[in-house]
Amino acid sequence: MNIVCIGSGNVATHFAIALKAIGADIVQVWSHDGKNAEILAALTKAEPISNWDDLDRSADCYLIAVKDDAIAGVAAHLTDVKGVVIHTSGATPMSVLSEVKSGYGVIYPLQTFSKSKAVDMTQVPLCIEADQPLTLEKIQVIAQLLSPKVSVITSQQRSILHLAAVFACNFSNHLYQLSSGLLEQYNLNFDLLKPLILETAEKVQSNAPAEAQTGPASRGDQKTIKKHLDLLNGNPDLQKIYETLSNSIKKTHL
Amino acid sequence: MNIVCIGSGNVATHFAIALKAIGADIVQVWSHDGKNAEILAALTKAEPISNWDDLDRSADCYLIAVKDDAIAGVAAHLTDVKGVVIHTSGATPMSVLSEVKSGYGVIYPLQTFSKSKAVDMTQVPLCIEADQPLTLEKIQVIAQLLSPKVSVITSQQRSILHLAAVFACNFSNHLYQLSSGLLEQYNLNFDLLKPLILETAEKVQSNAPAEAQTGPASRGDQKTIKKHLDLLNGNPDLQKIYETLSNSIKKTHL
Repeated sequence: MNIVCIGSGNVATHFAIALKAIGADIVQVWSHDGKNAEILAALTKAEPISNWDDLDRSADCYLIAVKDDAIAGVAAHLTDVKGVVIHTSGATPMSVLSEVKSGYGVIYPLQTFSKSKAVDMTQVPLCIEADQPLTLEKIQVIAQLLSPKVSVITSQQRSILHLAAVFACNFSNHLYQLSSGLLEQYNLNFDLLKPLILETAEKVQSNAPAEAQTGPASRGDQKTIKKHLDLLNGNPDLQKIYETLSNSIKKTHL
Repeated sequence: MNIVCIGSGNVATHFAIALKAIGADIVQVWSHDGKNAEILAALTKAEPISNWDDLDRSADCYLIAVKDDAIAGVAAHLTDVKGVVIHTSGATPMSVLSEVKSGYGVIYPLQTFSKSKAVDMTQVPLCIEADQPLTLEKIQVIAQLLSPKVSVITSQQRSILHLAAVFACNFSNHLYQLSSGLLEQYNLNFDLLKPLILETAEKVQSNAPAEAQTGPASRGDQKTIKKHLDLLNGNPDLQKIYETLSNSIKKTHL
């Protein structure tokens, strides 16, 4: 299978390397920044391009992994290629590709990627969608080679998944950051919290989050809540977050 | 070393089993509920008691692991025992034990315990404090037998650690629950989010949370933020949490 990789960021890099590993041929890596295209192209023995005139229009698959805002612009250059066109965004409807004549769809990898940390693609849930059954079959073949965790979902379900991921992951990470800042203020090392952070995430791998909930709000311990709000005096932003989340916990647990 | 364990809940159970494993003799387990005392006493070959008149007053150590509100009441029965008296609470100042004549202090285990899940005590940071250097030495000996991660901290630092743990863990778990609820509403399985939740917690084991932050708020992507708030129409509580946390992320990242 010949694949053109459009983009050279975190997601593009993880996909291109994983696709190469399952035996696909990455023929080209496109990036608006030629330098980035060269790095990923070198890793996957592909041709780096940054000019659309150089695009190989006869590949089996065009995998788009660029910033959400750039997908529509990229799609405009792929309307009459030979292969199936796939984007990888959680927040972008499949319809952004509707001008593509050769079949189109989505492979949304539900994971956070950073260039510095390897991610085992076989552990990543891949949520797929396609314009028609024939394209879905093609996309399914690619996705199942990458990971056994493939789900067919709608664009609306994908946007809900993306929203839920913001709650569970982007917001959790921000809470880690706020707690790290609190510790720093009192000469305490963030290392102290790391085992607890990991255990909290591990617990919900086998227990429902509602059952795993602990802490003052879940047991209605107003005395401790008041003490915590007092400790946050002079930091109204943290107080607001503490109150908002504690009230939400109370609503679901008391 | 002879230890009396006061309490028979999650923390008491994990401590008693770990202390037994390092060769301590659990002589008694006290619980206001005789049945619970019996279960833990059976596990640790101790005598179960629920009447303070039966207390062995000659043990080397009295470990209190009861609800925060109950610590003062327990301490009143331990003012003239032979051994050192230790509580294990994050939110309770050491001074609650100030009537104890034989030396007192705190071992605060920074981990979340549930009876159904084993926790490797050697991976748990233990934050200790004592009334005087001699007691600190005794407590340090016990703590270091349990875990290599022992830190001496003040009551104020402990209350900050406890507050930070609420942010990083109790609140994160609640966000997992909210995301799980969102998925359920749209017939999506919470399993889809589990690898992402784990990876988010694993990332901050080796990276600062500020560097690991991703998502629409951290890149100022107002279009996606607006889309998410629209998806949450009809759910003002979730909208408020989304806005509060997104604004806080923007403040620290933009």
